[in-house]
Amino acid sequence: MKKTPSNPTISHSFVMRLSYPNRIGMFARLTQTICRQGGDLGSVDIVNPDAKRMTRDITVRARDGKHVEAIVKAVERLKEVTVVHVSDQVFLLHLGGKISVQNKVPLKTREMLSMAYTPGVARVCEAIAEHPGKAWQLTIKGNSVAVISDGSAVLGLGNIGPEAALPVMEGKAMLFKEFAGIDAYPLCLATQDTEEIIAAVAQLAVGFGGINLEDISAPRCFEIERRLQERLDIPVFHDDQHGTAVVVLAALLNVARLARRELAKLRVVILGAGAAGSAIADMLLSAGVRDVVVCDRKGILNGATRADLNDAKVRLAAVTNPRGLSGSVEEALRGAHVLVGVSGPGLIEPRWIRRMAPKPVIFALANPEPEIRPEEAAAARAWVVATGRSDYPNQINNVLAFPGIFRGALDVRARCINEAMKLAAAKAIAGCIAPGELSAEYIVPSVFNPNVVRKVAQAVAAAAIRTRVERKRPTKR
Amino acid sequence: MKKTPSNPTISHSFVMRLSYPNRIGMFARLTQTICRQGGDLGSVDIVNPDAKRMTRDITVRARDGKHVEAIVKAVERLKEVTVVHVSDQVFLLHLGGKISVQNKVPLKTREMLSMAYTPGVARVCEAIAEHPGKAWQLTIKGNSVAVISDGSAVLGLGNIGPEAALPVMEGKAMLFKEFAGIDAYPLCLATQDTEEIIAAVAQLAVGFGGINLEDISAPRCFEIERRLQERLDIPVFHDDQHGTAVVVLAALLNVARLARRELAKLRVVILGAGAAGSAIADMLLSAGVRDVVVCDRKGILNGATRADLNDAKVRLAAVTNPRGLSGSVEEALRGAHVLVGVSGPGLIEPRWIRRMAPKPVIFALANPEPEIRPEEAAAARAWVVATGRSDYPNQINNVLAFPGIFRGALDVRARCINEAMKLAAAKAIAGCIAPGELSAEYIVPSVFNPNVVRKVAQAVAAAAIRTRVERKRPTKR
Repeated sequence: MKKTPSNPTISHSFVMRLSYPNRIGMFARLTQTICRQGGDLGSVDIVNPDAKRMTRDITVRARDGKHVEAIVKAVERLKEVTVVHVSDQVFLLHLGGKISVQNKVPLKTREMLSMAYTPGVARVCEAIAEHPGKAWQLTIKGNSVAVISDGSAVLGLGNIGPEAALPVMEGKAMLFKEFAGIDAYPLCLATQDTEEIIAAVAQLAVGFGGINLEDISAPRCFEIERRLQERLDIPVFHDDQHGTAVVVLAALLNVARLARRELAKLRVVILGAGAAGSAIADMLLSAGVRDVVVCDRKGILNGATRADLNDAKVRLAAVTNPRGLSGSVEEALRGAHVLVGVSGPGLIEPRWIRRMAPKPVIFALANPEPEIRPEEAAAARAWVVATGRSDYPNQINNVLAFPGIFRGALDVRARCINEAMKLAAAKAIAGCIAPGELSAEYIVPSVFNPNVVRKVAQAVAAAAIRTRVERKRPTKR
Repeated sequence: MKKTPSNPTISHSFVMRLSYPNRIGMFARLTQTICRQGGDLGSVDIVNPDAKRMTRDITVRARDGKHVEAIVKAVERLKEVTVVHVSDQVFLLHLGGKISVQNKVPLKTREMLSMAYTPGVARVCEAIAEHPGKAWQLTIKGNSVAVISDGSAVLGLGNIGPEAALPVMEGKAMLFKEFAGIDAYPLCLATQDTEEIIAAVAQLAVGFGGINLEDISAPRCFEIERRLQERLDIPVFHDDQHGTAVVVLAALLNVARLARRELAKLRVVILGAGAAGSAIADMLLSAGVRDVVVCDRKGILNGATRADLNDAKVRLAAVTNPRGLSGSVEEALRGAHVLVGVSGPGLIEPRWIRRMAPKPVIFALANPEPEIRPEEAAAARAWVVATGRSDYPNQINNVLAFPGIFRGALDVRARCINEAMKLAAAKAIAGCIAPGELSAEYIVPSVFNPNVVRKVAQAVAAAAIRTRVERKRPTKR
C-alpha cells in the first residue's frame, strides 16, 4: 500500500533566523526557495533591520524531520544568506516543562504565612485528623488527579520508559486543566513490575481525588487497574481503555441513530485485542451490542480454536464472538456492520470492507497513522469513516471523554468510575450533536465544543448518585 | 511553670456576620463587647445597609478556639444583635486547597494541542528516550520537587496520618513557590513502613529534580533518607533534619562572630535527640564545633552509661560527648556556652541557664511553644535567645534554608545535597547580616529578607560544582 504523503504540520514547524543583504528582491528569493521545497511559510518577524543587512525570524512548517533538513539546506545554499540558527517550535514549547504549580494566595506577609503554614495550618490538620474525609474540602485532593504511567506503551512509540513518557503525562495534565479545570500532576514510575506499580500508586493516592492510568501496556494494565480500584476509594481509570471505549460507544450510538438501527442488531468487529480493544468490547456489550467479534493480528479470538491466547484474551473470547466464528479478520468481517481498528498503521485491507454488510462503518483509530486512510476506505465504499486524526472528519479523541468523566466524578467525590458512569458519558457525548446536525461526516462533536465537558460531567455525576458511589451531592453551578 | 497567656493571632481570626438595628450607639456596643473579651478587632465591612437593620462582617482575632467561642457567646448575649454566621479565616483560606496546577500555554487551538500533546509531543518523547538526561530540560523535572510525608511526625501534632498531613505539605509547596519559584507537589504516603516508603519514593522520583522529605518520625527518617539518596541521582533532603541544622549553624556562626569566639572553642549542648537534634549535632561537628553533648529527656547520650539507646542514638553518642559526660541535662550544661533545644514545650528550666558559662546562648526551638519563653530565659541572664516563633527576635525558621538550597541544587541539577552544600548555605544565611547590623537580637535574617534565597542558592550551586555533584553549570542570571 502506497503511503499518501502528509502535509506540513505545526508539529514540525521551526523558526529560521536568517541574515541577508538588505536589498530589494532578496526576501522574495528566500520565500520562493522555501515554497519550492514544499515548506509552508508562517509568520515573519524582523529581528534587526540595518541599512546593510537584514535579520529576520521566519517560521516554516514542514512534513517531518527530513523535510526540515531539506528546507534549511536549500536556504543555506542561497548566495549571501546566512542561517544564524534554526529552532524547533515544539521543543521551544517544551523547554522548562509545560505546567507549573501556583499558589492560590501570595505569601508576602507574616500573617499569610501563619495562616497557610504554621502555626495556623495546625488547626486544619487537627480537623482532618479527626475526620479524614475533610481532606476533600480543605486540601487540593478534591480537585486533583494523578496522571500515572510506567512508560511501557506510550502513544505509538511503545516501551520508551518513564522519563520519555513525561512530556505526554504533562500534556495530559494540561488537557485536564484546560478542558475541566482539574489540577492534575504527572507521575511517571521507574518500574514496570505490576506489584511495585500497585504498591506505589496505592500509597501515593491519599492526596488525590482520582487516578488516571496512562500508557501502561496490556495485559498488565488490566490487573493494575482492577486491583488498585479494589484497594482505593477514589476512581482508578485507565484512559487508554475506557476513555477510548466511551468515545467509540458515543460514535456508535450516533451511527445507530443515523442508520436507524438498534445497537442490539449491529455486528461489530474489533481489530486489536490490547487495552483499548478489550475495553471497547466490554463497553459495547454493556451498552447492548450483542454481536461483538474481537480479532488480534492472528485472527478471531476464539477460546476453542486458539491455543495461543493469554488470560486476558481467553476472557475476552469467552464474553464475545456469540456465533463462535474462527479464522481470519476477513472471515470475521463477512456481513459485519462496523469495524473498529485499534491496532496499527495500514492493517485494514480495502477488500475486507467490500465483504461487510451494506453501508460499512469503519473506525480506523491507530495513531498517528490509521489502519486505513479515509480516502482509501471511501474508495472501498465505506459509509462512515472515523479516525483518531484531527485532519479528517469524525475524530475519535479521548479528550471528549476523560475531562468530563473526572470532572463529574470529582464533583460528587465518587469512589469509582463504574459502567453506569461511562455509559452516561458516552450518551452525553453523542447527545452533543442535535438530530438535525447528524451526518456521516459528523458523528462526534469537536474537541473544542464547549458543551461536551459540562454535559458529560453532569451525566457522570448523576449516574454516580444513581448508583450510589458518590460521597456528596453536587452544588448548583 | 506558669504559662504566659498568648496574644490574639491571625491563626485564630474569624469573621462574624452580625445583624442589628441600624441605630446610633449599636456598633460601639458591639466593639466594646468584643474588646472586653480580649478580642482584637480587625476589618469591618458592610454587607447590607438597610434603613432598619444593618448587616456587617467583623473580623476578630482571638487567642485560641475557646477564646473564639467566648467572644461569639458574648456577642450573642447582646440584645437585638443576631450572629448570622461565624467563619474561620484559616479554614476559609484552605477551602479547595492552597495550590493549583497551571498550564504555561493555553490549549485553545488545534495547533497548540498538536504541539503540546499528540502528535507533536512524540518527537520530544523520542529525544528523551534517546538521551534520558534531556528530561531535565524538556519537562517540569528541572524545576520540580516532591514534598513527601507519611504523616508520622507532623509539626507538634505527632502521628496524625497522611490525610491530615496534607495541609502542611501543601503549605510547604507554597513556600517553595513563593520563596524560590520551585514547582513543588505534595505527596502524602499511606504507609509508615520504611521499605514501602523507600520503594514508593524511589519509583515516583523520575519526574522530579529533588525530593523533600518532611515530618517523618525518627529513627525511620534516617534510614529512609540515606537509602533513597544511595538509590537516586537527585537530592533527597529531610528538611526537619538538615533545614533546621543549617539555620541553627547559621545562627551559631553569627553568635561566634558576635562573641569573637571560634566555633572550635564553643561548648554546645543539644536537648532533643530526634531527627533535628541528630542533624544539628552532625552539622555543628562538620562545621568545626568540637564539644557537642546531646541529651534526650533522660539525660546525656553516652554509649557507656546508657543501655536504653536505639541504634541512631548509639551512633550519635559515639560521635559527640568528647569529655565522656554522663547524667542529667543539668550536668551537661555546667560551663556550656550554647543550649539548643529541639524537644518540647517548657522543657528548659531557668536554673539550668544559671549553670552555663557567662553569656549563655539559648536556642529554644520547640514549636509553637518553646522549651523556655524568651522573657524567662532573659530573666535567667541568657545573653542571646532564639526561638522558632515569629513574635520574638531571632526566629530560627527553615524557610531561610530549604528554598535557597533546592534552588541552588536545581540550578546545577545536583545529584545530592552534600555537607559542603549545607555548610555553604549556613554561611550564606549568616552572611546576610552585615557586621554593623549584628546584635544579640539580630543573629539571623528575616524570612522576608529578599537576599537570602539568592545568596543561599548561589553558594549552594558553587559548592555543588566544587564537590563535583553538579550536572550543569548555572547560566548567568
